[in-house]
Amino acid sequence: MRRALRLAEKARGWTLPNPLVGALIIKDERRIGEGHHTGFGKPHAEVEALASCTESPEGATLYVTLEPCPHQGKTPPCTDAILKSGIAKVVIAALDPSEKANGKGVKILKDAGLEVEVGLLNKEAMELNKEFFTFHQKKRPFITLKAALSLDGKISMDRESKTSLTGDKTQIFLHQLRHEHQAILVGAGTVLSDNPHLGVRQVKGRDPLRIILQGERELPRDAHVFRDSNFLVLKNQKIESLLKSLYEKEVISVLVEGWSEIFTAFLEADCVDEMKLFIAPIFLGESALPFANLKEPLQLKKTKLQEIGRDFLLTALVEQSADAHVAEKTAASKDKKLNKQVGIRKSRKAKQSE
Amino acid sequence: MRRALRLAEKARGWTLPNPLVGALIIKDERRIGEGHHTGFGKPHAEVEALASCTESPEGATLYVTLEPCPHQGKTPPCTDAILKSGIAKVVIAALDPSEKANGKGVKILKDAGLEVEVGLLNKEAMELNKEFFTFHQKKRPFITLKAALSLDGKISMDRESKTSLTGDKTQIFLHQLRHEHQAILVGAGTVLSDNPHLGVRQVKGRDPLRIILQGERELPRDAHVFRDSNFLVLKNQKIESLLKSLYEKEVISVLVEGWSEIFTAFLEADCVDEMKLFIAPIFLGESALPFANLKEPLQLKKTKLQEIGRDFLLTALVEQSADAHVAEKTAASKDKKLNKQVGIRKSRKAKQSE
Repeated sequence: MRRALRLAEKARGWTLPNPLVGALIIKDERRIGEGHHTGFGKPHAEVEALASCTESPEGATLYVTLEPCPHQGKTPPCTDAILKSGIAKVVIAALDPSEKANGKGVKILKDAGLEVEVGLLNKEAMELNKEFFTFHQKKRPFITLKAALSLDGKISMDRESKTSLTGDKTQIFLHQLRHEHQAILVGAGTVLSDNPHLGVRQVKGRDPLRIILQGERELPRDAHVFRDSNFLVLKNQKIESLLKSLYEKEVISVLVEGWSEIFTAFLEADCVDEMKLFIAPIFLGESALPFANLKEPLQLKKTKLQEIGRDFLLTALVEQSADAHVAEKTAASKDKKLNKQVGIRKSRKAKQSE
Repeated sequence: MRRALRLAEKARGWTLPNPLVGALIIKDERRIGEGHHTGFGKPHAEVEALASCTESPEGATLYVTLEPCPHQGKTPPCTDAILKSGIAKVVIAALDPSEKANGKGVKILKDAGLEVEVGLLNKEAMELNKEFFTFHQKKRPFITLKAALSLDGKISMDRESKTSLTGDKTQIFLHQLRHEHQAILVGAGTVLSDNPHLGVRQVKGRDPLRIILQGERELPRDAHVFRDSNFLVLKNQKIESLLKSLYEKEVISVLVEGWSEIFTAFLEADCVDEMKLFIAPIFLGESALPFANLKEPLQLKKTKLQEIGRDFLLTALVEQSADAHVAEKTAASKDKKLNKQVGIRKSRKAKQSE
């Protein structure tokens, strides 16, 4: 199954909005076939694996990272292909959370008399497709917030135009991130002041759908973001309704590359799943623009750090507070909440001895 | 010489205010002796190396990381010991910058007919004792600014007491830092609000001299910082005069563990040599206290990053601006200066295409 997960990972970015899937066929302890879903519209992993078999898959075991699909989509149902092949046993890492599947694939296989096991390396399989699972479970896209920050959490010296904080190597990472997300989102202000390209050029990849949040101001028709039809202009609106409309459009992941206002709105809506902070070794000082206007502390977790030239990239999940602190809103509870939730301790007065 | 540098490094913290020194004696391509300065008041590296010789050092070559001392201090002059030993050649990595030495050791050896070479691994030898070289060259202590920061560059939620941002593992690194500095400096406010110990307990080490900057308020006699005589209370004063008085007291390195006001004062005086920033994966938000009140950007260089549990430590040198931008003070030049010195670029309007 580990190999199947690795195979699946190869296609990151290319399968969107489909999930990443890998499959392996084992017979008498020999690997007789393997494959992965290589791109949107292309054959599914199970079909690829079956097609690659070096001998008959009859009686063999199929290992697949996601529940085989029971429905006709761009390609025929994988369950049909499996049943036709004579496969005797199917080991699945994770169930497909989408409404069309969600156990239906397993049921078809079991009803046909196949042995089916679910759950091997389940956690890893869900991590592999965290965007896809978030999309179906939360009924909204997986949101990655990307910002280039100074050490004092600032993004620009002033509002006129964006200060470029990070070095050239960081651009490569950024373009890879764009490729790995189905869409990228910026505000109208960014289009007006920076006229960004928002495409993928520094790595081999696909351009994400460019979502522009429009406010009062007209956007110039000749802006780079309108260079082809791969864009979507949405009215500036409440984040909740924005996410609802992106869910309906089957956008499973969005890279938010905004300014303070957009970052603040997403964070306040408590719907940021992951942060990608490119941090430059500079303090911009007190007059610079903060990355977001945070009224409350924001705790990150599962941090991962990478050095990129003179910058570094902090990848982290956001401690989402929705479940925990809805009820607490008074000033008195604020402090307690901070200590409890955010995990920071205040030193005891006149006792602390560090 | 590399081995001599490594030997010297072993005693970091223990020799203060003396430099770290290592020495090797080579005869007919065999290492016949080696040693390092192990602690303040203990024999110098050259003497240790001579004492360890497994055969007569007559005619041998001495490799030493710092120029041998020509003067009587806590121990007799090393030049005497070298001359007595019959050593024929001395290879020195760096000259001793102190007034008592500074070429005098080399002269004595040369005048006595020994072959002397200076400069092998000079850069590494100066890095090894950067505090000592800074002390003699700039006639002030080497200043390390240590702060525990949030991702938005804040140090505490409020002024009442310090918010503990970093985890337990970070404490071990902090205590090691204290051991490696001759002195530690805090403001009276820290003593009054936190009653810190400022000692070294989590690693084997020596307590640094505790320097407390006193303002208007009286300090409590029973504060932890006064637990033994290893402290120094100085009146709050201009940083320049403070550094002058520490230079006169032969304090070669100071770890500044202050609050915003102290950090700001040291940074404004342009005398911070190194920063040790322990960064916790949290944003404290806009109402929290900033690490320093910076009017201008502060560029760091030669950054080094370490993960420490859930925190990370950024070690960096400070781009000192004294030489470069004294003359420029107008608003017009501010922007140009920023772009030039701080190395950050502003995106070109309507042309930029990221």
